[in-house]
Amino acid sequence: MSCPTALSVLVNPNVLEAENVVKDAISHHKILHIVGKCWVDYLGRAKSKLEPGERILIVKADGSLLVHRSIGYEPVNWMPGGETVFHVLSKTGVLEVHAVRQKPREYVKVFFDRIRLVSALSLVDSGEFALYASEEDMQRVILLRPDLLEPGFRPISYEKKVEPGFVDVYGVDKDDKLVVVEIKRKTAGKEAVLQLARYIDAVRGKAGREVRGVLVAPGIGKDVQRLLATLGLEYKHLDPKKCAEILSQKKSKKLAEFFNETAHFQHP
Amino acid sequence: MSCPTALSVLVNPNVLEAENVVKDAISHHKILHIVGKCWVDYLGRAKSKLEPGERILIVKADGSLLVHRSIGYEPVNWMPGGETVFHVLSKTGVLEVHAVRQKPREYVKVFFDRIRLVSALSLVDSGEFALYASEEDMQRVILLRPDLLEPGFRPISYEKKVEPGFVDVYGVDKDDKLVVVEIKRKTAGKEAVLQLARYIDAVRGKAGREVRGVLVAPGIGKDVQRLLATLGLEYKHLDPKKCAEILSQKKSKKLAEFFNETAHFQHP
Repeated sequence: MSCPTALSVLVNPNVLEAENVVKDAISHHKILHIVGKCWVDYLGRAKSKLEPGERILIVKADGSLLVHRSIGYEPVNWMPGGETVFHVLSKTGVLEVHAVRQKPREYVKVFFDRIRLVSALSLVDSGEFALYASEEDMQRVILLRPDLLEPGFRPISYEKKVEPGFVDVYGVDKDDKLVVVEIKRKTAGKEAVLQLARYIDAVRGKAGREVRGVLVAPGIGKDVQRLLATLGLEYKHLDPKKCAEILSQKKSKKLAEFFNETAHFQHP
Repeated sequence: MSCPTALSVLVNPNVLEAENVVKDAISHHKILHIVGKCWVDYLGRAKSKLEPGERILIVKADGSLLVHRSIGYEPVNWMPGGETVFHVLSKTGVLEVHAVRQKPREYVKVFFDRIRLVSALSLVDSGEFALYASEEDMQRVILLRPDLLEPGFRPISYEKKVEPGFVDVYGVDKDDKLVVVEIKRKTAGKEAVLQLARYIDAVRGKAGREVRGVLVAPGIGKDVQRLLATLGLEYKHLDPKKCAEILSQKKSKKLAEFFNETAHFQHP
C-alpha cells in the first residue's frame, strides 16, 4: 500500500480495514477520501458540533482537511494544511480522525461509525493554473495601483455616470489634466475607441479643462492606433493575467483574513 | 445504477464506462467524485486555464462543483450549485464535464483523458450543524448589536488597554455611565469576576465618573452571583450559539461578496 502511485479503494470496509488505509494515506501524504456516516467536533477559537450523517472527508497531501455535506460549495468543517498533525485510531467500532493544530490550538475530530468508501492515492500534478482578470478586476487593479496606468495618476472615481454611460475610471494626471479611462480585457477594436471618444466629449463639455482619454487593454486591433491618433486618444497596455496576479496576492490575504475571522467555519 | 442508495465505484475505467456513471450520478443528484488526469477551462467575468495534471472533481447533489489539487484547502476551480446545468460527453478518448450558469453567463469545463477512480452515491444526511462563537465573535456581536447588552448601550472602543490588560468592550450606557464589559464564552467563574473588578478599578481611577462592570457569559458558576453583588458588578447572559447565528448571517453575505469579487477563483 505504500507504493507511491498505487490506488487503494475499499468499499464498505470495516473500521479496522479502513484504519489501515487511512493511516497509510496520511503517513505517505496521499489524498484520502472517506465517505460514510460521521459526526464532527471542532474546538479552537470557536466550537462546533456536526451531528451524525453521511459526509465526505478529504485529507490532502499537505494535511488540509475538508468535510463536505451533500450540498453547497463550501465545506462544513475544514482546516488548513501545513502545521496540522493527524491522529488516527479506532475505538469500539468507531474510526476517529483527529486533525490538531497549535497557534492557535485547535482541532477537528471526525468520528465514522459506518464507512461506505475509502480511497487513497497520490496525484501527479505539475500543471500551471493561469488566471486572467475580468474588466472589473482590471479596474480594481488601476484603483489599487494607479501608477500602473502612469506615474502620477490619481483616481477620483470609478463607474462615474456621464451622459452616454459609465466611465470605468476617472482621475487626474500629474499635470492636473482630467483622465478618462476605458478598460477592455480583450484586444480592443474601433468600437472601444468610439465609446471612449463619446465619454470624452461628454466630460469635456462640463470640465472646462483639458481632458485626456486612455484606452486600457491587453492589445489593440488593426488600424485602431490610427483612429486613436486621429481622435487625440491614447492606448495603455495592461495584461489581464498580470492584473489577476496582483489581485490574487491581495485576495489570498483577504481570504486568509476571512477564514481567520470565521474561525474555520463557513455557512450555507 | 439508479437505485438511490447504491454506491457505484469504478477503478481505472475507460472513458465510456466513466461517462455512464457520471451521467447517472448527475441526473440522480448523487455525489460524484472523479480522480484522474484533467485540464480545466473557466470563462465568465474572468477566465482561467488549468493545465493537465491529476486532480479530484467533485459534483455535489445541488450541482456545486469543486476541482481540488493535491494540496491546499481551497478548490482551484469551483462553481456554486442551484442554477448550474451540466453536460457530460466523451470525444476521442476524453470525458468532458461542462458546468454552465447564466446570469452571469459562465462555465467550467473539465476534460479527463485518464480516469483513475469514479465514485457516485447519495448521502443520507439530516444532522444539524451547531456553531458556538469564540470570545472574539461574541465581542464582535456586541459591537454590531450593542442593544443585545442592554438598550441604549453605545460602544466606544474594544480591546482598550487599561493597566492590568485589555478591556473587551468599553462604552457608555443610556445614562452616560461608563461600562466595562468582560466576555467569557464558557460558564464564568470567580476568576472572571476578579479580572473584571481589576479593570473597573483601573478605569475608575481615571474616569472621574460612575463606572459599571458587566460580565457577559453563557452562564456563571456557583457563588459567582454573590461575588458580583459584593463587588457591585453585573452579569448579562449571552449565548455563543446565538452569537454564531448572528455572525453567520453577516458572514455568509460577506463570503458571497468575496466569491463574487474573485469571480470564482481562489488562490493558494
